[in-house]
Amino acid sequence: MTKHKKPLVIGIAGGSGSGKTTAADIILKKVGSHRIAYLQHDSYYRELTNLPINQRREVNFDHPDSLESDLMREHIMALKEWKAIEVPVYDFTTHSRTSQTLHVEPRRVILVEGILIFAEPALRSLFDVKIFVDTDADIRFIRRLKRDLEERGRTTEMVIKQYLTTVRPMHLDFVEPSKRYADVIIPEGGLNEVAMDMVIARIESMLRDDSNP
Amino acid sequence: MTKHKKPLVIGIAGGSGSGKTTAADIILKKVGSHRIAYLQHDSYYRELTNLPINQRREVNFDHPDSLESDLMREHIMALKEWKAIEVPVYDFTTHSRTSQTLHVEPRRVILVEGILIFAEPALRSLFDVKIFVDTDADIRFIRRLKRDLEERGRTTEMVIKQYLTTVRPMHLDFVEPSKRYADVIIPEGGLNEVAMDMVIARIESMLRDDSNP
Repeated sequence: MTKHKKPLVIGIAGGSGSGKTTAADIILKKVGSHRIAYLQHDSYYRELTNLPINQRREVNFDHPDSLESDLMREHIMALKEWKAIEVPVYDFTTHSRTSQTLHVEPRRVILVEGILIFAEPALRSLFDVKIFVDTDADIRFIRRLKRDLEERGRTTEMVIKQYLTTVRPMHLDFVEPSKRYADVIIPEGGLNEVAMDMVIARIESMLRDDSNP
Repeated sequence: MTKHKKPLVIGIAGGSGSGKTTAADIILKKVGSHRIAYLQHDSYYRELTNLPINQRREVNFDHPDSLESDLMREHIMALKEWKAIEVPVYDFTTHSRTSQTLHVEPRRVILVEGILIFAEPALRSLFDVKIFVDTDADIRFIRRLKRDLEERGRTTEMVIKQYLTTVRPMHLDFVEPSKRYADVIIPEGGLNEVAMDMVIARIESMLRDDSNP
């Protein structure tokens, strides 16, 4: 019934630890994941199989060039034409794509999440709604530190080193300036209920218009 | 039917020339002004009748103390209890309140607009939704310059002087720091259609829920 309508493409960007993934999760839960095609920029990390294993860790994963944004662009364009796509499944331990892919069906809403999606001109132009989740840098660092200690078995020293050598400089060079392209800036991301209500109301009003033409 | 429900109080703040009045106008037009009780902080300027006429112009109208925020607070509280209010009508040429008042009926949505409404703790706590319209300082100055030249018969020199002596310092002291309290930050204000759609969808979803309980 709604197949002929052009999907609404929503982008959620923001620094590491800003709360953008939580924001995306809330949208998926409240609107219903069956109504949304959900893509994460992280799935499109480039394969590093041409590099020896011990050098793979040295790559700057926070630079836009580490992601295959052209492929993501093709995928979003396909979804906009109501075609299904096969999203790469990345193995972060070997820095290569697994033999599996994630099949994603087209939906009326396409939700795209990633730190650098507004920094990349090829992606930026695809979004109908650009949401930037803006959280203070100290809070973002603390969240990242806790996650990496608890979930990724890192030491505090390792987290600090990575933060200062790549995460922070890339944030200042690419992420922060890309805020300028946002249509809406949401402090604190998913924890910001007032703002999330607004985003969800916008999506649901569109879906409601579809069923009451 | 909806009288027993607590009105939703929306605040729109932002610097001079940010586009907040345009944003408020669009909400009034799209949602319908008959469904909104609309208040502007500017209506609550203090009377300067105790000062000689020639000294009234010297007052810093950009400082929070120049506004009777306590009275505005009382008015918002009254509207929240579904009581009508009488808003002062200010005469900016004599800097005094006229003998008239503007009668404002309570409505399900209370929309409050003003540069300093989030800077004032007594007001800030009343808002359910705090929207900050954020526009670059140069663009804000240019808009203000054009308005004051075209509509207020000022000279460029007068506009620059007032901007540098009061508007800019008060912006940096009070307006910019109050952005921190915002639930949503909207670049460019009323000209930002994507963001306005979101705000309007949020209000309309609430009004729709009222009529479909």
